[in-house]
Amino acid sequence: MPKIVRFHEFGDASVLKLDEMPMPEPKSDEVRIKVKAIGLNRAEVVFREGMYLERPKELPSLIGYEASGLVDAIGQGVSGFKANDKVSSIPAFSMNQYGVYGEYAIVPARALSHYPEHLSFEEATSIWMQYMTAYGALIDIAKIKEGDFVLISAASSSVGLAAIEICLHHKAIPIATTRTSAKKAQLLEAGAHAVIVTDDQDLAEEVNKITNGKGVNYVFDPVAGKFLKECAKATAHGGTIFEYGVLSKQPCVFPLFESLQKGLTVRGYTLFEITSDPNRMERGKKYVFDRLQDKTFKPKIDKTFSLSNIQEAHKHMESNTQTGKIVVTV
Amino acid sequence: MPKIVRFHEFGDASVLKLDEMPMPEPKSDEVRIKVKAIGLNRAEVVFREGMYLERPKELPSLIGYEASGLVDAIGQGVSGFKANDKVSSIPAFSMNQYGVYGEYAIVPARALSHYPEHLSFEEATSIWMQYMTAYGALIDIAKIKEGDFVLISAASSSVGLAAIEICLHHKAIPIATTRTSAKKAQLLEAGAHAVIVTDDQDLAEEVNKITNGKGVNYVFDPVAGKFLKECAKATAHGGTIFEYGVLSKQPCVFPLFESLQKGLTVRGYTLFEITSDPNRMERGKKYVFDRLQDKTFKPKIDKTFSLSNIQEAHKHMESNTQTGKIVVTV
Repeated sequence: MPKIVRFHEFGDASVLKLDEMPMPEPKSDEVRIKVKAIGLNRAEVVFREGMYLERPKELPSLIGYEASGLVDAIGQGVSGFKANDKVSSIPAFSMNQYGVYGEYAIVPARALSHYPEHLSFEEATSIWMQYMTAYGALIDIAKIKEGDFVLISAASSSVGLAAIEICLHHKAIPIATTRTSAKKAQLLEAGAHAVIVTDDQDLAEEVNKITNGKGVNYVFDPVAGKFLKECAKATAHGGTIFEYGVLSKQPCVFPLFESLQKGLTVRGYTLFEITSDPNRMERGKKYVFDRLQDKTFKPKIDKTFSLSNIQEAHKHMESNTQTGKIVVTV
Repeated sequence: MPKIVRFHEFGDASVLKLDEMPMPEPKSDEVRIKVKAIGLNRAEVVFREGMYLERPKELPSLIGYEASGLVDAIGQGVSGFKANDKVSSIPAFSMNQYGVYGEYAIVPARALSHYPEHLSFEEATSIWMQYMTAYGALIDIAKIKEGDFVLISAASSSVGLAAIEICLHHKAIPIATTRTSAKKAQLLEAGAHAVIVTDDQDLAEEVNKITNGKGVNYVFDPVAGKFLKECAKATAHGGTIFEYGVLSKQPCVFPLFESLQKGLTVRGYTLFEITSDPNRMERGKKYVFDRLQDKTFKPKIDKTFSLSNIQEAHKHMESNTQTGKIVVTV
């Protein structure tokens, strides 16, 4: 029987269990994939803690948005896929219904995609969450353009690095933030125009120096909490702050005065806004696929773990020492 | 010597003094008006308290954004106005530099406008702040359209009533909020599709009933504080919340989860965004002027006071018992 990761209670990484389960069968519009690699996301850590945007309807719960592998069985009504196709999953479903951590996974066909052939399984599970999330905010919504200053916080995450690549591709100017100086060199190497170390430096002051007092046009931030106010101080008149995560556990204060004075927009955003809309999803898929195909975008893998070490993989994510995607191979 | 209202210290309405001052002379690009009526705004109460978006550079300070009257003297370089023209002032300046409470006022020419002839002086000082503020958010930015649900909080303020008129004019559906039932009938009479009494009713629950569970497309809110979260719960997927004031003294909590789940936009806004941009200002002026001219819009005056009762006029605003504009006649 295949091993499937589930958690039976909310808690730290130790609640993740490798359960032996009957082989799952695809229903209509579903595909079973033989999983080769799993890409980890912060969302899954928060889901495991019971603190995510949605909670499991029941426990034990499946978990996981991103996997790559081979098409293994196809449900009724599915077209476009055949056995042994190399595919990877796009976060376009609820973890209340599907979860891809395991040796096999059921995924709705609409959330499955082929990917450029030159990518390894590890790379192929390190694309959709990060590029679609950054694409949705920066391109689909903001339509960033040459010369725009874009502040990217928690920039060494897979989404942060994808945002840097997207900015550079569109000739916008990515300014990265990171908490300590440990990852500064890596972020500069990744293409950040400047890196602000928020434990040591005042964000608005540094941004002012870099932008000649103008502030950034966009902020792309998963931290929230008290950091939102710091971001607002660093934002130009008429600028937009995307909030796409809940990394901080502090209450999130709305920067009322800065928003009124500068006409700021604070925009809540998740990639589900894109992946739940067939047209926006198709445009996003093509955007990402084409730029992977021509190697404009190159997914960066931080470290790989084996499936039996899934707990260690989650702990590594929570250590915040990674730069890029954490991948579990199966 | 003309009487001019100034405050010598921050505080309650009692700090407003009628000082006898030398006749002020218009410099380049300025006009002196013989004031006939003054329109009061919440911004001036907060400015008097030292809690506004800007604080006076020095005390004593002038105060006041809106006055109507007759052109009395014209500085160098001013065109388009002549002596005895009936004019009213548009909030397109800083109260650090200008203030119109008094028998005479100096106003920059770009912040002065003629107005439709059928308006009294009292009505003519009850147009620009309210209609330009609501126009800027709902038309210039949001471009509301037929069938949109628009939640208008603190709806019995002059800006709130203007927002109701603008919604009705564009066939959008204004839902008003008010704290107690005292003004409910007046708001229905003003054209509100529904009135929610926030002290007695749950905002999101009532909005859900009215919108068939969909939520409102826009919120136009000067309250902020904890009320922002209530607004977010009542807002539809993809909706926009305009925050344009600081009525609540409570810390303003950003509704992070609601914003992420529904892709909400929270937009800080003041009419200065419109009046500081010559093109947007011109479009706004024409929009408002034309709809006053053809009587689509009818400014509602709550009560008039004499200039010697300026303290009572401010106290009346702070009583929150008014519906419409509080005017001081000179």
